[in-house]
Parts: sequence; structure tokens; C-alpha cells
Amino acid sequence: MRIYADNAATTPMCPAALAAMLHCMEERYGNPSSLHTPGQRAKETLETAREEIAALLHAAPRELTFTSGGSEADNQALRSAAALGRRQGKTHIISTAFEHHAVLHTLDRLAREGFSVTLLDVHTDGLVRPEELEAAIRPDTCLVSVMYANNEIGTVQPIRELGAICRARGVLFHTDAVQAVGQLPIDVQADHIDLLSASAHKFHGPKGVGFLYARRGVALTPLIEGGAQERGKRAGTENVPAVAGMAAALRESAAQMEQNAARLIPLRDRLIEGLQTIPHAARNGDALRRLPGNVSFCFEGIEGEALLLLLDDRGIAASSGSACTSGALDPSHVLLAIGRSHDVAHGSLRLSLGPETTEAEIDYIIENVRDVVEYLRGFSPVWRERAEGKAPFVL
Amino acid sequence: MRIYADNAATTPMCPAALAAMLHCMEERYGNPSSLHTPGQRAKETLETAREEIAALLHAAPRELTFTSGGSEADNQALRSAAALGRRQGKTHIISTAFEHHAVLHTLDRLAREGFSVTLLDVHTDGLVRPEELEAAIRPDTCLVSVMYANNEIGTVQPIRELGAICRARGVLFHTDAVQAVGQLPIDVQADHIDLLSASAHKFHGPKGVGFLYARRGVALTPLIEGGAQERGKRAGTENVPAVAGMAAALRESAAQMEQNAARLIPLRDRLIEGLQTIPHAARNGDALRRLPGNVSFCFEGIEGEALLLLLDDRGIAASSGSACTSGALDPSHVLLAIGRSHDVAHGSLRLSLGPETTEAEIDYIIENVRDVVEYLRGFSPVWRERAEGKAPFVL
Repeated sequence: MRIYADNAATTPMCPAALAAMLHCMEERYGNPSSLHTPGQRAKETLETAREEIAALLHAAPRELTFTSGGSEADNQALRSAAALGRRQGKTHIISTAFEHHAVLHTLDRLAREGFSVTLLDVHTDGLVRPEELEAAIRPDTCLVSVMYANNEIGTVQPIRELGAICRARGVLFHTDAVQAVGQLPIDVQADHIDLLSASAHKFHGPKGVGFLYARRGVALTPLIEGGAQERGKRAGTENVPAVAGMAAALRESAAQMEQNAARLIPLRDRLIEGLQTIPHAARNGDALRRLPGNVSFCFEGIEGEALLLLLDDRGIAASSGSACTSGALDPSHVLLAIGRSHDVAHGSLRLSLGPETTEAEIDYIIENVRDVVEYLRGFSPVWRERAEGKAPFVL
Repeated sequence: MRIYADNAATTPMCPAALAAMLHCMEERYGNPSSLHTPGQRAKETLETAREEIAALLHAAPRELTFTSGGSEADNQALRSAAALGRRQGKTHIISTAFEHHAVLHTLDRLAREGFSVTLLDVHTDGLVRPEELEAAIRPDTCLVSVMYANNEIGTVQPIRELGAICRARGVLFHTDAVQAVGQLPIDVQADHIDLLSASAHKFHGPKGVGFLYARRGVALTPLIEGGAQERGKRAGTENVPAVAGMAAALRESAAQMEQNAARLIPLRDRLIEGLQTIPHAARNGDALRRLPGNVSFCFEGIEGEALLLLLDDRGIAASSGSACTSGALDPSHVLLAIGRSHDVAHGSLRLSLGPETTEAEIDYIIENVRDVVEYLRGFSPVWRERAEGKAPFVL
């Protein structure tokens, strides 16, 4: 059995996205900035895609800027809001400790440039408390950035409440919605979102493309300067085939969102229940307020990397945390943020289900995770110490 | 007849690039940062592509950073070199007046940040003089940026000489090679290039992908921060399918470079000769030191946009200057840089030939350009004034 349970890292493209992209690569190869027919046809494709994506988010087409992906969108969103803040003498930014590194590292840079950054606590349930955001806002706060759904533990934040607080206090609200777009119904107006980042390859679209929503009136600073593409907000020849693929993928994700969730949630919960029967194992993040396909666990006494490699041998593609930091030896900053100890955080496993996931696969995963965890604990000095009562169990 | 003569704006993908990309989208969808088999397979594809591209440029694989295209690569190259310069107290940059806007606008930003910028003259032949570069270098010069081949007028700079001067004087040398890669043999070592930008869609690869070569020891500052992809130089999930498509396109371009040039140069020269028979018309840029497929002309007394639209009606897709500024009303900064007057610069036409161009197409273009130019001059008050001897002709 070969099971792809790493849809939070990236997803296979859906046939509709692949077809849209292929069509463009073959038939719409013009440069949308060109005045001639092949150019104008490409421009039509680009703008039709923009209209479609905007409509799905309750945004206006001109509020969308296409980027090379989620990281670029995050970088540009934060730097733009910071630039706007600085012009008003506001240099305080609020975010959370479990954001994606595209946000955290940009915040580090802004801190070096003189911004002060407050990171809200993420509670053990993986959720931010609106009242804590409310309390953290200062007169000089220019931006709040809280991710829609966490990429490792899958918890879904109370975005609408957070957005309402920011709007009421006159503070820009950005959300990294890379894991949420295509999985959760997003309405940028009802959610009071000023800036939103998304990435197509997380919702069965192509890699190398994403978008940044910026509410009308929120001026973006270009990260990439040059030609006047994207209304001067993002230079470089527009990636028309990828944008068309993204629109097709989002259209399909939106159309199937409800039925997908209805299918995935029972599978997810079956998987969580199954893994909870393994001794000294704990689910990460709230049981209910999480993405339909996200399962995140910590297993005491093992190393996540070894677990992954052995699961891979058994045909299961999973992750310990985010793919972006898979090579890193440090434990996940997300798991530390929700209060896991260093050694427990090392024994983490993320399984992110997709539209292809079946019940048989879930059962196969449970059986094999149990098996491999047990096997690895046999070699683990940490486990032995605790099993022999020389040190206490944490989980 | 439908003729695509705007290959400098963008090129249709070659079948090899399309096949490589499609294969990856279907079979290599994993995230290269993932430890499991689908991820590691994607990583293999990525690194094989990097090795191939590096070898074609006489570079080492680790000297290549994949980007979303040429504009991003230009922005990152300049900002990185500027950051290195600033650390050494060197804040003078030399470039030319006819660079792409991705370079010029980044230089504007650096100037606002305190750098001083010298723009070398581009002579009427569209070429930079090495001795003028030599004379412009100061003790505080940290960077020289000169494009390999111009995107509008197609002139090819004496890059090797310029590179040698920079190397001898200990100044970093960047070249925007977006128009040159795949068309001219480039050897970053023999050319003494420290930083080089390229874009796949200019050589029959996919849109949305390019690369930045940075010689070993030249530290890049990330433009997009986040995950540790691309050795920390460029965050964001790697666009594996596009990179594979780019490698396939470059491999094919390199293999066919000589025979392509041998076929294109006579076609280009036939087109130039034909257009030169139109009265009060002039070729832009040197006759010999130009890209094999580039033809650039100014026609007195007409507007380039009207010319393009009427040529488009006759099935010819061409450009007035670069696609990136097609919407702009200002005359081309490139044509002004080589000494064309504003009104002559407005009447420009760029025809960029490709591997599909035939002799019959060339003859069709000549006939129709002649026809349309004559037709437009019939409506032109400027032309009438000059034809009636009330004002002098410029060309």
C-alpha cells in the first residue's frame, strides 16, 4: 500500500488544474503585457482567473495580487503593512509564536529595523484567545498577523473574532491562510481581513504560484520591482498558466469543500481515536477546531525522523512537522509554542489526509504507526528510563 | 498567416520542456523538503536540474538559486551585492541607462537608501565601451551591472571584457542575461561573471521560474524569507515542475544554439535589409553585435502602438519595445539612451524571431510593415509637415 498522508506539505494537482495549465502552456503562451492577440488572450485568461478567485473569497479582482507562492505573499503583506505603519509612526506588530517561518523570519527582520513585536501565547489547545489579542493592542500597533489554520497542528483560529477586534481598533489584520484556502470557507469581508496570503499547491493547484489579497485602500509595497505588472505591485511576467491552474483548483476545492470535509472529518477522527490507543501518545491541538484532514500527535520516547523513515518504508508518506523545516534538528517551534517539552516535541507526527484517503488507509496507518512506535521505543534509552520508573512519563 | 515575432517578450514552450513539466506535475508532486519517498524523488529531480543548468553555464550546482523569474533574480542580485558593499563601506554602483526596469527600479531604491549610482552611456550603436567602465570605477564601487543582451534593441555587450575589468578591480559584476541565456554561449567563469540572472520563459521554458547564479563566496541576501529552501537563500516550496521544465528547455536551447543562430542570422539580416528599404526608417543597435533573432527599427512619423495593432490585424505579433512597458505612454528609455529623439522613439518596432520563423514569414513581415507604415504616415501630421518640407526629417 502506498499512502500519501502529507497533503499539508504539498498536494498532487487535481485534473482540472492540470488541464487548465496545460491548455495555457500550449495555447495561451503570450505575454499578457503585449498588445497583440496572443498577449491579449493571455491577459484575458489572467483576468478571468483573478475574477474567479476573487469571487470565491468575496473580494474584488483588483484586491488580488498574484505571487510566486505563500512565502512571497507573507513577506510582502508584512513588509507592506509595516511600511504603512511606519509612515504613521506606528511600529508595533502583534503575531503569534506558532506562525510559519515566512511570517516569523520577516518579523525578525522588521524587529531589526526597529519594530517591536509582541507574540501572543498559543494555548495548549493550539488556539489564540481573542481577549488576549484585545489586551495586546497598543496605540502604536500597526498590524496583527495570525494564521488562519496552523500548518503543523491544524488548529483553526477564531479569525472572524480576531478580525473584528482589529477592525474596531483600526489595526490592519493579516492572516496566513495557506493551509485554509480551499479547505475552509473564507469570506474576507465577513472575516474583517485586510491582508491574506495563499498558495496554490496546498489546494491541488500548481507549485510556484499564490496570491496576496489586500483590501482596497491597503497599499502594497512591491517586493520585486521592475515592470508595471500587477498594477505595479509585483514585477515580472505574469505566470498565466499557473494562475489559470490555481483558479481551476480553487474552483474545484470550493465546489467540493463541504462534501470533502464531510468525508474527511470522520476519517480524521477515526485516525485520532486509533492513535490515541497507543500508550503515552497525545494529540496536538484542539479536537474539533482543526482542519478536516489534519492529525498531529506526539509519541513519548521516540525521534520523529526515525518514525517517518520507517513509515515511509511501509509506504506511508507523512511528516514530523512542516516540510519547510524537515531538515532541521531543532524541535518544532509550533509544538514548543503549545507547551510541549523539547523531548516530546521531537517525537511528533503529522498526517494530513486528502481527497484520495480511504478508511482502509486509515486503518493501515494506525496499525503501522503503533507498530513502528513500539519498535522504536525498544531502542530508546529515554523510553527505557521512563518505563523502568527511573524518570516520569510526560504524556 | 499568423506569425509570432515577439520571442523577446516570451516564447512558446518547447515540447521537451512541456513533457518534463507534465511528468513532474503528475509523478513528482512531492515537496522536496519532505523526508519521505515522494519528497526525496522531487528533490532528486530538482538537484538533477540544478546540475544540468549549472554545467551548461560552467557553474557549480550550489552556485544556482532558483527564483520565480528574471525580475526576482535581478532584484536579489543587486540588493545582495549592495548589502555586501555596504558592509565594506562601498556604496557606489555602476550600471547603464538601458537596463531592464527590474535593474533600474532596484537601483532607484538603492539610491534612496544612500547608494550613489553612475549610469554609463550607451552609444548610438547600443553598446557600452569597456574603457568608459574602467574610468567610472571608483575605490568605493561595489557593483557593476550591465545586461548581457538588451531586451529591446538586442545588442550584445562585450561582457567578457567588462567582466575582466571588474575582476581586476575587485568589483562584483552582475549581468542581467535574461535575453542571452539559451541564445548565446555563456561561460560564467571565462566571462568573469559574479552574478547572473535568467528567466526560463525567454528560452522556451515555463513562465514563473528563473535562476540567479552567484559565484561561490558571493553571499546572497534572501528577498523572500521563511523556510530554509535553496540553502536559505530563497524561501518557499521549490517549483520542481517548472525547474525541470527550465532545465529541459535550456538543454535543448544549448544543443541547438549553433544551428539556430546559423538559421536565424540570415533571416534577421534579410528582415533588416528589407525594412531598411522603407524611407526614413533606421535600424536600432549595431548590425552585427546583436542577438540572432532581434530586429529593432524606428520609423519616422508614426506611433508604434498603431503600427502594432495594424500588424496584429494582419496576423503579425510584434512589439514596440519591451512587453513590460507596453502599456506605458512614455517612449522607451532604451531608445532614448541610444540617442533617439522622443518622437522617433515613439515609432519603434521590435521583431524577435524564433525557431519557427520562416523566410516566407520574413517576406510577409517586410511587405506588411512597409504597407502599414505608409498607411499610418498618410494620417500623421508630423509626417506631413516633414514631407512638405516645413520641418526637417530626423531619420
